[in-house]
Amino acid sequence: MDAARPGYAGSMSSASQTSPVIDTARRAKEAAAALAPLPRTARDGALLAIADALVARTGEIVEANAADVDRARAAGTAESVVDRLTLTPERIAAIASDVRDVVALPDPVGEVVRGSTLPNGLELRQIRVPLGVVGIIYEARPNVTVDAAVLCLKAGNAVLLRGSSSAYSSNTALVAVLRDAVASAGLPADAVQLVPGESRDSVKELMRARGLVDVLIPRGGASLIKTVVEESVVPVIETGTGNCHVYVDEHADLDTAVEILVNSKAQRPSVCNAAETVLVHSGIADAFLPRALAALEKAGVTVHGDGAWAKAGEAEGVDVVPATEEDWATEYLSYDIAAAVVPSLDAAVEHIRRWTSGHTEAIVTSDTTAARRFVSLVDSTAVMVNASTRFTDGGQFGFGAEIGISTQKLHARGPMGLPELTSTKYVVTGEGHVRG
Amino acid sequence: MDAARPGYAGSMSSASQTSPVIDTARRAKEAAAALAPLPRTARDGALLAIADALVARTGEIVEANAADVDRARAAGTAESVVDRLTLTPERIAAIASDVRDVVALPDPVGEVVRGSTLPNGLELRQIRVPLGVVGIIYEARPNVTVDAAVLCLKAGNAVLLRGSSSAYSSNTALVAVLRDAVASAGLPADAVQLVPGESRDSVKELMRARGLVDVLIPRGGASLIKTVVEESVVPVIETGTGNCHVYVDEHADLDTAVEILVNSKAQRPSVCNAAETVLVHSGIADAFLPRALAALEKAGVTVHGDGAWAKAGEAEGVDVVPATEEDWATEYLSYDIAAAVVPSLDAAVEHIRRWTSGHTEAIVTSDTTAARRFVSLVDSTAVMVNASTRFTDGGQFGFGAEIGISTQKLHARGPMGLPELTSTKYVVTGEGHVRG
Repeated sequence: MDAARPGYAGSMSSASQTSPVIDTARRAKEAAAALAPLPRTARDGALLAIADALVARTGEIVEANAADVDRARAAGTAESVVDRLTLTPERIAAIASDVRDVVALPDPVGEVVRGSTLPNGLELRQIRVPLGVVGIIYEARPNVTVDAAVLCLKAGNAVLLRGSSSAYSSNTALVAVLRDAVASAGLPADAVQLVPGESRDSVKELMRARGLVDVLIPRGGASLIKTVVEESVVPVIETGTGNCHVYVDEHADLDTAVEILVNSKAQRPSVCNAAETVLVHSGIADAFLPRALAALEKAGVTVHGDGAWAKAGEAEGVDVVPATEEDWATEYLSYDIAAAVVPSLDAAVEHIRRWTSGHTEAIVTSDTTAARRFVSLVDSTAVMVNASTRFTDGGQFGFGAEIGISTQKLHARGPMGLPELTSTKYVVTGEGHVRG
Repeated sequence: MDAARPGYAGSMSSASQTSPVIDTARRAKEAAAALAPLPRTARDGALLAIADALVARTGEIVEANAADVDRARAAGTAESVVDRLTLTPERIAAIASDVRDVVALPDPVGEVVRGSTLPNGLELRQIRVPLGVVGIIYEARPNVTVDAAVLCLKAGNAVLLRGSSSAYSSNTALVAVLRDAVASAGLPADAVQLVPGESRDSVKELMRARGLVDVLIPRGGASLIKTVVEESVVPVIETGTGNCHVYVDEHADLDTAVEILVNSKAQRPSVCNAAETVLVHSGIADAFLPRALAALEKAGVTVHGDGAWAKAGEAEGVDVVPATEEDWATEYLSYDIAAAVVPSLDAAVEHIRRWTSGHTEAIVTSDTTAARRFVSLVDSTAVMVNASTRFTDGGQFGFGAEIGISTQKLHARGPMGLPELTSTKYVVTGEGHVRG
C-alpha cells in the first residue's frame, strides 16, 4: 500500500503533506494494517516480550531517567513532581508486572457485539476491531508510556506517544525497549512510536493528521485537554477534568454522609474523581454542618463556604473562606472544598448541572425516591448513591486497566478499558444474496 | 437552571455568546434536560401525537411545500430533484405511518449495557441515556425533517434541524406541526427546533456551539460532510460517502458474481451503498469479464476499465472507457463503474485500502479461506461475503429505522439506529462505601 497517497481519505487529511510527525503517523497507519488481522497470541506474545525487556534493560532505563530527574531538579521542580518522574528498578518491575496483568485480560478484538440471522437468511455479525492508530498526548509520568502502549497493542492498535518534554529522555529509552521487544515478537516495531519533537508544534501536527490518526486521547491538565478538544481535526476523546459534587440529602445518615464526604475529598485530593463541592439540603444542615466542619478540619481540608457554612463555622470555631462563583467552577485538586446549603434536591441538581465538568456526582440519602430522582436528573459520567466519588476508576470498576476517564458523551463515557480502544465492523455473510 | 451561564462547560464553548442560532441551541439544551428523565410512555405519546398531527394538518403542509416546489421549478431544478422535494397527502400519510413504526421499536433509554456487583459489594450498572442535543444538517428531502426529529425524540434527545434552504418553507410548516404535537403531549416544544437562517452562517454557528450541542450529524453530499468534519468544534458523526467495491475472487461462482455485481451497481445507483468499483482476480478474468460486460451493458452501466477490461470490451464489442486514477477515487452515484483486474486477493485489498471511503466492500468467493482473509484485512464499516453491497442499511439490518450510516470509527460505525443516538452513564450504588 502506498500510504503517501491514501486516496479518498487523503482528500480530507494532511496525508499528502510530509514532516517528521506526519511520516511517523504514516508508518503507524501501515503498522496498524499489519496488526489488525493478527490473533491474540501474537499480540500477547509482544506484551510478554515487553515485560521481559523492561526488566532485562532496567539499567539503561534508569540511566536515561536520571537525566530527566537531574534536569527537573536543576530547574527547581517540586519534589513531589520529581518523585512522579522518577523510575527505580522496583518501579520498573512493578510496571512489567502490570504488563503481565494486561496479557491476562480478555481479548476485545473479534468479540461479537451483536448478531442475528436476518429474515432473508443473511448472517449479520457486528464484531470488535482495532481502532487503528491511537495518539496519546500526556504529561509527566513515564509509566504512562508503557501503560498506554501496552493497552493499545492489546486492542490491536498502533500507538503514537507524545509525552512531556520533561520526560523525553525516559520516554525515548522506554520506547526503544518497547520497539525492540515488539519486533522480537515478530510484530512491526512501528506499532509503537514516540512522536518526534519536543515543542508544541508536534502536537499541532498530530491534531491535523486526519486520515492517518484515528483518535487522539489527551491525558493531563485542563489546558492541554482544552487545546486538543478545540483545535484537533482528528477525533478526540476528552478525558479527566473532574469538578465532582457530593450532595447530602435531607434524609441522609449523618455518619455515612460525613464518611463519604471526607473520603471523596481527602482520600487523594490530587485526582480527577476527588470531590470539589459539597451541597447540603437545608433540612439537615443544622445537624450536618458542625459534624462536617469538624471532620473536614481534622482531615486538613479548608472549606470555601456560602453564608450558612460561614455561620456554622463561626459557631464551631472553624475558619470558613467565603465562597465566590469561582469556587463553584474550580477543580481544586487540593485540600480545599466549596460548600453550599441548598433548599432542595432539585436545587442541588440545578447547581450541579450548571457547574459540573460531568465527571462524577454522589448523593448520600436513605430515601429511595430521592436517590432515583438524583440518578435520573444528573447528567454526568458516573452517579454514586451512598458511595464515595473516588470509585470512578477502571480498576475499581473491575476493567483490569484503564487508559483514561472519558468525560464526553460520544464513543466512550467514564473509565475506558480495552473495549473502548476498539471500533466495530459489520460482517454479512450470504450465498449470493441480492436486493430485490 | 440559568443556561446563559453554563459554568465549566462554558469555558470551552461559545455558550456565553448570543445569536439566534445560539439561543436556539440553549433552548434545546434546556428541553433536553427536561426530556432526559421522562419515561418511554411520555416520549411515545409525543410521537403518536406527531403522527396524528401530520395527517390532520396535511393541507397546510402540502401548501407550504408547493411554495418550495414552485421555487425549485422556477430555478430550473431537475425533475428528479423536484420529485424528491414534493410532499403529497399520500406521502405525508406514509411518513405518519413510519412514525408509528418508530413508536413500536424497543426503547433504548435505560437499557443496562453492562452491570455487575463488585467484590466490595458496590452495584455497578452502565445504562443508556440520551445524548442530549443532536444537530442534524441535511439536504433536500423534507421527510428527513420528520424522520430525524422522531428518532431523536424516541431516544430522549432534543433535536436541532438545519435543512436545505430549498425546502425551507416545507420544513417550517413541518416543524410547526411537530412542535405543536410535542407540546400537546406535555413535552417541551423546544425539543424540536428549526435552526434559524438560510445561509451557511447558521451552520457555522452550530459547529461552534460546543457545550450546548452534543453531536452534529451531517447528511448529504461529500462537500457538506467535509466542511462539517473539518470545521466543527462540536463532535461530529461522519455519514454516508460510499466508494464501495466488489471483489470477484479466483474461486467465485460466475453466476453469483455477475448477479451480485449488477445488483450492487445498478439496483439503485444514487445511494451510498451502491458499488463504484469492481476488482477481478486475474485467474478468473478470462471467464468473468465477458459475462460481466454483457450484464453491465444490459443494465445500462458504463465501464471505466483498466487494460484488461478494455481488451475484453474490444473482444465483446462493448465500449469501455479507459480508467484513470480519478476513477478509483470517484463515488459516481450513477450508471458508471470503475473496473480493474488484480493479480491476487491481497492486491485487491491493497487497492481497496488505498481508495475506499470505508463504507462497504464485498467479496464473491466459494473459498472459505479467501473469505476469511478478505474479512480480516478490509477495514470498512461493512464487509459482505457473497452478498450485495446494497445490504448495508438500517432497515435491511433489522434496526427498524436509521438516522444515517456512519463511516467513522468512533461511537457508531455503520447504520445508526436508536442505540447509536444514546450515550451511557454509570450508576454505582453502595451503602456508605468509601475507598481505603
